[in-house]
Amino acid sequence: MGIKVVKDILEANERIAKENRKLFDEKKVFVINLMGSPGCGKTSLLERTIEKLKGSYGISVVEGDIQSSIDAEKISKLGVKAVQINTGGACHLDGNMLKEALPDINLDETDLLFVENVGNLVCPAEFKMGENFKAMILSIAEGDDKPKKYPLMFHESKVLIINKLDLLEHTNCSVDKIKKDCLEINPDLKIFEVSCKTSKGIDNWTNWLIREMGEKK
Amino acid sequence: MGIKVVKDILEANERIAKENRKLFDEKKVFVINLMGSPGCGKTSLLERTIEKLKGSYGISVVEGDIQSSIDAEKISKLGVKAVQINTGGACHLDGNMLKEALPDINLDETDLLFVENVGNLVCPAEFKMGENFKAMILSIAEGDDKPKKYPLMFHESKVLIINKLDLLEHTNCSVDKIKKDCLEINPDLKIFEVSCKTSKGIDNWTNWLIREMGEKK
Repeated sequence: MGIKVVKDILEANERIAKENRKLFDEKKVFVINLMGSPGCGKTSLLERTIEKLKGSYGISVVEGDIQSSIDAEKISKLGVKAVQINTGGACHLDGNMLKEALPDINLDETDLLFVENVGNLVCPAEFKMGENFKAMILSIAEGDDKPKKYPLMFHESKVLIINKLDLLEHTNCSVDKIKKDCLEINPDLKIFEVSCKTSKGIDNWTNWLIREMGEKK
Repeated sequence: MGIKVVKDILEANERIAKENRKLFDEKKVFVINLMGSPGCGKTSLLERTIEKLKGSYGISVVEGDIQSSIDAEKISKLGVKAVQINTGGACHLDGNMLKEALPDINLDETDLLFVENVGNLVCPAEFKMGENFKAMILSIAEGDDKPKKYPLMFHESKVLIINKLDLLEHTNCSVDKIKKDCLEINPDLKIFEVSCKTSKGIDNWTNWLIREMGEKK
């Protein structure tokens, strides 16, 4: 694929992302683009986060997957509106895919919109959708060499959530190495260590998020 | 990206993959395209496989990563030639990337060439490189919903290696569900269950591979 084609795609995407952002500002919706490898725990983090925040905030979720509606069904069980986007092959969400999903969401009743990207540690980092920030999850089971091998996602994210701490003792993964290598790529990265299985560390993340959202409610 | 552009890219790739295949046939090289999510254990499987087979076969490895040469360095420590391809952003290897790496490999002394793809459960499945077959790894830690969410890779692979069996007791993952859902997508899929950490099950895989390679040596 030529460099020109890629450039055109990214420029068109940026334009649509700005339109989305304008709408989110009008409607006072705080939007988080949640990224990470397949199976890192994106949906589990949403479940734990929604349990903590749904009493205080209007929450909606857009689920991005190649195929299936497994994740939207999980989220719906928590009493939160979840819209499933099936990309039909595409390995990431983009501004237009989100735009097309927005009519199915009641933005007037949404304070906080989570967009769960396709499981992929590469391409989602390149596409803006109008979000307030990108957050990524890395599972302990993926190993501590991931920042050096997939630097762009760590560079583009405001938040890194290291998940599956409960597996730490059964692996050779070093959390210190992950943190050190991430902060070399992105010194401003905010890092949380959690286990979505045991809920350890989830409060630190949700309390920080509440502060970030500020007066949105 | 328009459908025509995608079609052109895939057709050009197919042409180069056929050229690669012709060369591999001339040189009697058996080629495996190894795919899977970041951190599923592709390099660990290569390490265990090379330990078993390097006394009997000439083995070479091409390592595909966005960035870094971490994996090629690990493989080189086993006394096997490893060439690193850095895709510089691209989320998969293609026929041309492999073609450009081949001059760095002594094909006359190679019976078995492993090409480790970029960690990604989506796009690598779409690109042929001239391999004998595609093999994929799924880690227990990724969860048992992956076949339904990322069906193409399971469809295109001849072999599925379920790795990190050592973590099974610490997760909610059902190996039976993985197998059932995979076989619905691809009834001919050959499935191995292994732990690259403990080496459990590795012999089943390497013994099968030796039979597949047949009289190549």
